Amino acid sequence: MYSDTQTRPSSAMRKAMAEAEVGDEQRFEDPQVTLLCERVAELLGMEAAVFLPSGTMCNEIAFRLHIRPGGDEAILHRTSHPIIAEAGGPAAFAGAMMQPLDTPRGMFTGEDVRGALRYPDRYSPRSRLVSVEQSTNMAGGRVWPLSQLRGVVDVAHEHGLRLHMDGARLMNAVVASGVPAAEMTRGFDTAWLDFTKGLGAPLGAVLAGSASLIDEAWRYKQMLGGALRQAGIVAAGALYALDHNVDRLAEDHAHARVLAEGLASLDGVTLDPGEIETNIVIFEVDDPDALCAGIERHGVRMGAVGPRSVRAVTHLDVDAEGIQHAIEAVRQVLES
Amino acid sequence: MYSDTQTRPSSAMRKAMAEAEVGDEQRFEDPQVTLLCERVAELLGMEAAVFLPSGTMCNEIAFRLHIRPGGDEAILHRTSHPIIAEAGGPAAFAGAMMQPLDTPRGMFTGEDVRGALRYPDRYSPRSRLVSVEQSTNMAGGRVWPLSQLRGVVDVAHEHGLRLHMDGARLMNAVVASGVPAAEMTRGFDTAWLDFTKGLGAPLGAVLAGSASLIDEAWRYKQMLGGALRQAGIVAAGALYALDHNVDRLAEDHAHARVLAEGLASLDGVTLDPGEIETNIVIFEVDDPDALCAGIERHGVRMGAVGPRSVRAVTHLDVDAEGIQHAIEAVRQVLES
Amino acid sequence: MYSDTQTRPSSAMRKAMAEAEVGDEQRFEDPQVTLLCERVAELLGMEAAVFLPSGTMCNEIAFRLHIRPGGDEAILHRTSHPIIAEAGGPAAFAGAMMQPLDTPRGMFTGEDVRGALRYPDRYSPRSRLVSVEQSTNMAGGRVWPLSQLRGVVDVAHEHGLRLHMDGARLMNAVVASGVPAAEMTRGFDTAWLDFTKGLGAPLGAVLAGSASLIDEAWRYKQMLGGALRQAGIVAAGALYALDHNVDRLAEDHAHARVLAEGLASLDGVTLDPGEIETNIVIFEVDDPDALCAGIERHGVRMGAVGPRSVRAVTHLDVDAEGIQHAIEAVRQVLES
Amino acid sequence: MYSDTQTRPSSAMRKAMAEAEVGDEQRFEDPQVTLLCERVAELLGMEAAVFLPSGTMCNEIAFRLHIRPGGDEAILHRTSHPIIAEAGGPAAFAGAMMQPLDTPRGMFTGEDVRGALRYPDRYSPRSRLVSVEQSTNMAGGRVWPLSQLRGVVDVAHEHGLRLHMDGARLMNAVVASGVPAAEMTRGFDTAWLDFTKGLGAPLGAVLAGSASLIDEAWRYKQMLGGALRQAGIVAAGALYALDHNVDRLAEDHAHARVLAEGLASLDGVTLDPGEIETNIVIFEVDDPDALCAGIERHGVRMGAVGPRSVRAVTHLDVDAEGIQHAIEAVRQVLES
Repeated sequence: MYSDTQTRPSSAMRKAMAEAEVGDEQRFEDPQVTLLCERVAELLGMEAAVFLPSGTMCNEIAFRLHIRPGGDEAILHRTSHPIIAEAGGPAAFAGAMMQPLDTPRGMFTGEDVRGALRYPDRYSPRSRLVSVEQSTNMAGGRVWPLSQLRGVVDVAHEHGLRLHMDGARLMNAVVASGVPAAEMTRGFDTAWLDFTKGLGAPLGAVLAGSASLIDEAWRYKQMLGGALRQAGIVAAGALYALDHNVDRLAEDHAHARVLAEGLASLDGVTLDPGEIETNIVIFEVDDPDALCAGIERHGVRMGAVGPRSVRAVTHLDVDAEGIQHAIEAVRQVLES
Repeated sequence: MYSDTQTRPSSAMRKAMAEAEVGDEQRFEDPQVTLLCERVAELLGMEAAVFLPSGTMCNEIAFRLHIRPGGDEAILHRTSHPIIAEAGGPAAFAGAMMQPLDTPRGMFTGEDVRGALRYPDRYSPRSRLVSVEQSTNMAGGRVWPLSQLRGVVDVAHEHGLRLHMDGARLMNAVVASGVPAAEMTRGFDTAWLDFTKGLGAPLGAVLAGSASLIDEAWRYKQMLGGALRQAGIVAAGALYALDHNVDRLAEDHAHARVLAEGLASLDGVTLDPGEIETNIVIFEVDDPDALCAGIERHGVRMGAVGPRSVRAVTHLDVDAEGIQHAIEAVRQVLES
Repeated sequence: MYSDTQTRPSSAMRKAMAEAEVGDEQRFEDPQVTLLCERVAELLGMEAAVFLPSGTMCNEIAFRLHIRPGGDEAILHRTSHPIIAEAGGPAAFAGAMMQPLDTPRGMFTGEDVRGALRYPDRYSPRSRLVSVEQSTNMAGGRVWPLSQLRGVVDVAHEHGLRLHMDGARLMNAVVASGVPAAEMTRGFDTAWLDFTKGLGAPLGAVLAGSASLIDEAWRYKQMLGGALRQAGIVAAGALYALDHNVDRLAEDHAHARVLAEGLASLDGVTLDPGEIETNIVIFEVDDPDALCAGIERHGVRMGAVGPRSVRAVTHLDVDAEGIQHAIEAVRQVLES
Repeated sequence: MYSDTQTRPSSAMRKAMAEAEVGDEQRFEDPQVTLLCERVAELLGMEAAVFLPSGTMCNEIAFRLHIRPGGDEAILHRTSHPIIAEAGGPAAFAGAMMQPLDTPRGMFTGEDVRGALRYPDRYSPRSRLVSVEQSTNMAGGRVWPLSQLRGVVDVAHEHGLRLHMDGARLMNAVVASGVPAAEMTRGFDTAWLDFTKGLGAPLGAVLAGSASLIDEAWRYKQMLGGALRQAGIVAAGALYALDHNVDRLAEDHAHARVLAEGLASLDGVTLDPGEIETNIVIFEVDDPDALCAGIERHGVRMGAVGPRSVRAVTHLDVDAEGIQHAIEAVRQVLES
């Protein structure tokens, strides 16, 4: 339960990959990649899409697409992936000034964006990009309500800002809320879907946007070495995931709620199960490092993500029995 | 009183400049530049120094010296000059991830720095640089107490971080506190002094640091076009300022206190005169834009620097009579 | 024959991939990736290695590792991949000044490098990196003689320069010359191997170097989004290629010679078959675009790579019959 | 005669500077800077202009204006200033791929530009900028003929490229050829004039272009720290130079011809006096370093600029007597 990045491709997915017809994706001759990009573009309500090796590359290329070289600034949550987990790439690669917001639950409102805008003069960074994470990661898998997304979009458009959605767990948000993905991305310039994590493919992500942005994204795909050859081998896994692993995310969410309720009942754990919306459970204990080390001896892996916080993530390699085992392991370690 | 950047060179300073013996500073043949750099290095307790056209270039080059290309991050106050007034240069030019702190009065502690450190793994930005502004600008000319600076230095050194001091108004802090400049910069890797603003020279600043850092700074001076020719013409103005305009900063501070007391006595102004330490007076009114427009008709210029804030700055072109005139102008506008 | 990038994974390779045990490569838990990196490091005589999605990413990361931010320059052939085929990445991403050499056959000598060195002052770019392509691509698959590589290494070391080898077709050079790969890379700081092209895997490359450089490379792998998850799925293909597709490159070279001799015998073709060392055949005709369009109607694809030049590449999907068919197609088009 | 960068401000120029009315140039309140920018814009036939501390900053900002972040390339002569004397700034700061041309005399034609264009695909750098130096520096002060400039402009426009003119010695070219500056810059997007060197001011240059480009240039001026305060002090020197030091460049050119004829008559010197068009004399001797060291003992300074080349530059601090003394010094050293 350390992370849903640990999911392994199933036999059926491997079979689909092994039998896939492939070609050179750089010449647009790989049928799997072509189909995958078409499907994701449609799913996200965008004109076009490009296959990339990872979600991080989607973020890095999107920042480079939106951030211009003359001192542009991105507005995003302090716990978001581009700030905490991309090795400083948004500044080192795209030259983005970063303005982190400290709002609750990893989410912010249109008014928060308005408050973060720079005065448009020669001295200030230029407010340029708003980036949101749907669902939130370090804030515990929260789903941005549609109305809140719309509020952010409205303020951004009012001030000529670009919008980007990090969709590392977008399908979790879709399944949990019942809101179609294209509704969530409406008004956004770029958005992406990851096929590892809960969707269970071994690698790959797809970045979607307008035809002209995706055309420009191809330059960066080439520049960074994200341009592959017979990528259909992996795109076939992503297509399999779209067909077979989306609806079942509901099981992960149910498991997460059971886990949260179980943990909340333990002495020494602080957690409100009502906050669990998707597949991420973040709870507080006195000594996260000790707890994680202790439960690893029971074969359960979770991650310490703050001075008092532990994160557990449910995914397709975790079943109901595993959940009970995990709760029991935490109980034993905390009582010992 | 709009800003101390408005100060104009006096007749005596102009005479010193007109009579200065000069040479090509790029060949280290300009005696004024050589002398100025030696004096500033000694004043700041550093090995070496380099003359640059402006304080902003000092900051930009210092960031480039300290920030390495692999995703380094700077920790600094949210109101500091590199964040709000350098057109996004720290990211656009040096590639720095920026982590703004929101602590009171533009200052932070060693513990604040400790709380901002990143976990040293492959995913996080690398904590690399702490930058402080002495005195603070947008926080109202506050002087960092020596013990607080030392606390910041200690935490930074404990974690291998570099330290940079923006000394746009460092001599104001020195005169106000009686603490020598070299005491304030102790433990810092780079620090600089500006000769415009309160010191009254038309242009120029000097960045100081270790011999090897200043040697490397020369590469960026050359690259950015900060390498000049017969720069002694302006360096002579800076030398004049060092000799004649430092002690008199105390007058500006006295003027600022009189101004603050006068303003604090007016209805509609929120201001604690006890907070005024140097030459900057920030006070609150209901409508800063209206006030600034109104007093400009009385020949008084101040700047709106926030939704409720106005900033006034005293300097060598503002005398006691001007202070009274300014208070009276504010009074009349607020009462009208 | 358009390019050896067109090679498709064989059934046996697909089976190896489908059955591979995998894990999260970012936690060093993927056994295929671990084994592949160990084998490539040993093959290239380096301490360590890192798996990346493509050879282009190997080049981009290597440039970023070697080129420092203060104006460093790379010395490399004007036809080399980083100059002509990486969307300007060496400057746009790594900030490298590029000094192209115009020497014959895509290769240069130690003396050529010496002639390209900059004077070490504050004004000049800093000579920093020598990059070579083994075998050459646009110069027709030529193999750098070992003595010539050593000469380049010696001059580079004498002047403190770093050395990088683009090994997109390094195994072709090894098979053609009988010189072990580790002999060729001796003295180089970084080198890489590509598993697409002649080796027939669908994607992936491995960059090797010292332990500390590869550790730093991991930061850029993370930053650029080259960090994958269950990458063993594709690494298994690369391992299969190492075991089964290296020796057979000799067949591609034999096919290339037959092709060259056949083409050289045609009227309207200029080509010296004695120049063919590996799997690339570049020949001259009056109208390359017309020729390529013409033979495509016969089901043969080659590429126009200059105002008079056509490039053909042999690989594992091209057999002896295909070679004869290609010669015949060219003959018919030229005669028509 | 080491360089015309050695010129010192005259008494009359110093007087003009000392008496100049000044203001804050960042608020467009400095009358000298305003007037200077207007005059240069008109002289160069451009809409607008911006004052900068140096010609190098003009080049660096112009490259940043023209070069976009997605892998753009500049086409320019291998001996040009951005390649050899800006510490690698065009790549390190603007991210420009550099394509050096090796044409004779530091100049190239429209056809040379055409030959350097990249194929417009996703793999190649994007041809974007042509940069010329008028007059040439390291090629010996040659003046680009107007027809040749027009040829370059035509090809650049045909392919959507930007054009930049480095005018470090543009007024030398104007005086030598009788062609107005605005004729030379016609069709160029940016061009600049330096006031040090032959014009004799202590520092400063002005970059001109369209109103929108100059507006954008101001952002970089601010970012890099080229934004000054009471810059009128130095702008007054530049204005004085425009009024008093332009026509007299003809004397420098006459001196250069006398020098060239004198040197050409010496044994051991290779030089064609007919090649001297402006104020730069480059000649060949067997041992440049020995010659330069030798004549320095006679009080004459020239610079070794190649394995067999020495460069001498005439300027307003060199008179007819100095020329004869220099020739005599070279004679004595060569004969000794």
